[in-house]
This record gives sequence, C-alpha cells and structure tokens, in this order.
Amino acid sequence: MAMEVACLDLEGVLVPEVWIGVAERTGLAELRLTTRDISDYDELMRHRLRVLDQHGLTLGDIQAVIAQMAPLPGAVEFADWLKRHFQFIVLSDTFYDFAAGLMAALGQPVLFCHDLVTGDGGRIFDYRLRLANQKQAAVAAFQGLNFAVFAAGDSYNDTAMLGQADLGVLFRPPAKVAAEFPRLPVAEDYAALAEFFRAASSRAIPAL
Amino acid sequence: MAMEVACLDLEGVLVPEVWIGVAERTGLAELRLTTRDISDYDELMRHRLRVLDQHGLTLGDIQAVIAQMAPLPGAVEFADWLKRHFQFIVLSDTFYDFAAGLMAALGQPVLFCHDLVTGDGGRIFDYRLRLANQKQAAVAAFQGLNFAVFAAGDSYNDTAMLGQADLGVLFRPPAKVAAEFPRLPVAEDYAALAEFFRAASSRAIPAL
Repeated sequence: MAMEVACLDLEGVLVPEVWIGVAERTGLAELRLTTRDISDYDELMRHRLRVLDQHGLTLGDIQAVIAQMAPLPGAVEFADWLKRHFQFIVLSDTFYDFAAGLMAALGQPVLFCHDLVTGDGGRIFDYRLRLANQKQAAVAAFQGLNFAVFAAGDSYNDTAMLGQADLGVLFRPPAKVAAEFPRLPVAEDYAALAEFFRAASSRAIPAL
Repeated sequence: MAMEVACLDLEGVLVPEVWIGVAERTGLAELRLTTRDISDYDELMRHRLRVLDQHGLTLGDIQAVIAQMAPLPGAVEFADWLKRHFQFIVLSDTFYDFAAGLMAALGQPVLFCHDLVTGDGGRIFDYRLRLANQKQAAVAAFQGLNFAVFAAGDSYNDTAMLGQADLGVLFRPPAKVAAEFPRLPVAEDYAALAEFFRAASSRAIPAL
C-alpha cells in the first residue's frame, strides 16, 4: 500500500456496459447508445429515461436485468489486486441503485457515482448528477490530498479524468476514442493495465 | 449505497492502538504514549522514532509485533456493514507499512494515511506526513465532491474531522477528550455508532 490511488471507470472496464445489457435483455434497441456514442451525458440520459417511460419499465425491472449480469472475466481478480496494492476507488457515471449488485460481486469497492430519482412503483422520473465532471474532480481532489493518481477508463466521459491523473490509460477503447486521444496509452487486457500501474508506482508491486 | 461517505479512524475504533500493542509486546513503556496523551503529533512521532532507534528496533520488528494483533471484536462485521451501505474510507494517522496486515483482516478498505521513510536493514529514520491535518482535509474534499460525510473517531487527532463532517461521533473516547468536546455525540459500541449513521442517512438502511 502507499500514497497512490487507483481510479477505475466501471462499465467497459470492470463490468459490461449496463445499458447495452438492458437493451439486449429487454429487446429495446433504442437503449443501446452509450457515452461511447453520444458525448453529451445529459442528452443521453434524457433519451434513456424517455425510452424507459414509454415502455413502462421501472427501477425494479432494470435491477432484475442487471442482476443477470456479472463482472467481466478477470475483473474480480484485478479488483482484488488493486485493493491490495493501491487505494482503489471506482469512478463511474452510473447510479448507486443500478450498481449495487455488481459492486457486491467486485468485493464492495468504494464507488463514486450518481443518484436516480424514483417515484411510486419504482418509476425513474429523473437522475441527479452528484457533480458535473465528477471523475476529473475526484482525481483532482485526491491529488490535492497529496496522492498520486493512476486512472483507467474506456470512453469519452473518462478522458478528462485520464488527462488529470498522474497516469491515465485507455482500457479497450473504441477505435474512435483512441484516435481522438492519441497521447493516452492503451491497454487491451488487465495484465497490460497492471503493468502500466506497476511501472508508474514508486514501489515494488508484484505482478497481477 | 448512496451519496454518503463514512469516514472512520482506525486505531481505537476498528483496531487496537498499535503503539500500545508494540509497547506491551516489546516491554518498552516509553512507547505507550498516543495522540490521546500528546496532542502534538510531530512531537509524539519524534519521541517514538527516538525510542525505536535507541533499542535498535526495525520496521520488520514492528511489523512482526503488529502481525500478532487483530481487529477489535465486532470490527470486521461493522466494516462489512459500512461497505455495503456507505462509501467507506478509513482516515488514520498511522503508516501504510504498519497497517497492511490489519487492513487485510478488515477486508481491504480504502485507507488514507502516511508513509514511513526506511533505510538499510529496515531502520525507520523518518516519517512523511502525506498532508498536515489530512483527516479534516479529506472530509472537506469529499464534501466538495457533493457527498455527505459521517465520521467517527476517538481522539484529539479526530476532532477537527468530526467537526468538519456532516455528522461526527466520538467512539469510546477517553473521558478527557469527551469533556473537552461536549458537543460531539458519543457511541460506546458499534451498534450505537451504526444507529447514529442510520439516523443521519437520507436512506432506509438495515440495522447492524
């Protein structure tokens, strides 16, 4: 352990894209869009909530779908390695009510994300961003507390965090994200990502 | 889970006072002093390092002593409850090289603390505070990220953090600390502390 914080995006890095899973399991193709496709998060979320409402899908319905999902292969072992060797915090633009089951499967790491606003019968009628640009702000806050921060993410909503961090790595990014941010190193698997973190650390850390 | 962070002190709250354990197991009574006795942390640490040096005790010796210690009775279950229902972060003025084994026993929660500076043969020749007043600064940083923060600690070096937090509770404080900070509520066991956190939460959280 040491004065180094590891910040990881959740969806696409440790677990599958939740909305794509929901789209597949509900058959609603309109829910397939993610931050990989639309960089304006509010526009994307308004679209999603409209689709859910049109089809009468509640928070309980979505949670039941997410309960069928699991962390990506190798993610639990990678999260365990991060917990042992860094102060490990997940920075995600998902919602606590969506992530609960997947976080339990990952061994309950600390998660900074957002809240949904639900009403009678579990209708999701709004979402509440905890903070705009919260990933970058969290990395800056940890740096302000004198931690070095190593970060990884896959998408448009990660690039400000990756640029802010002492080390920022794209993990399995779509080709167009990698092309738009050519200065960010790319890792295609957990072993490669672990090597970036080990190389940046001031300590001798065992390999993943 | 939700937009609420739980910050707990480590020694005296989740694990025994490490330096008292070291004093008992090494027979060096001069190491019994803690932040409960001397409120100036640097003065206290200079004293401790001087005593270790006089007796030729290395980092390895201290780690061997700490390896015989365990979390306080009920602490593992309480830490698990905190992890499930809050974003749980330990704020301690200990050192990463001391805490490692105890953190593993607690299920590897995130820990913000300090570093030791060691030399050949594990001689501890200095310590490096990550940040002065780091506990209060961390609580303020989480609040700046729009989290509500509930905190608990037992000692002088916790009172600034407890005053900064949205809820600050003294856990099993020495009588003189409780007397000097009469506005801070006091919990004598984990069940009582959990009730303070539940009452302050915006959510319905199951009892410990």
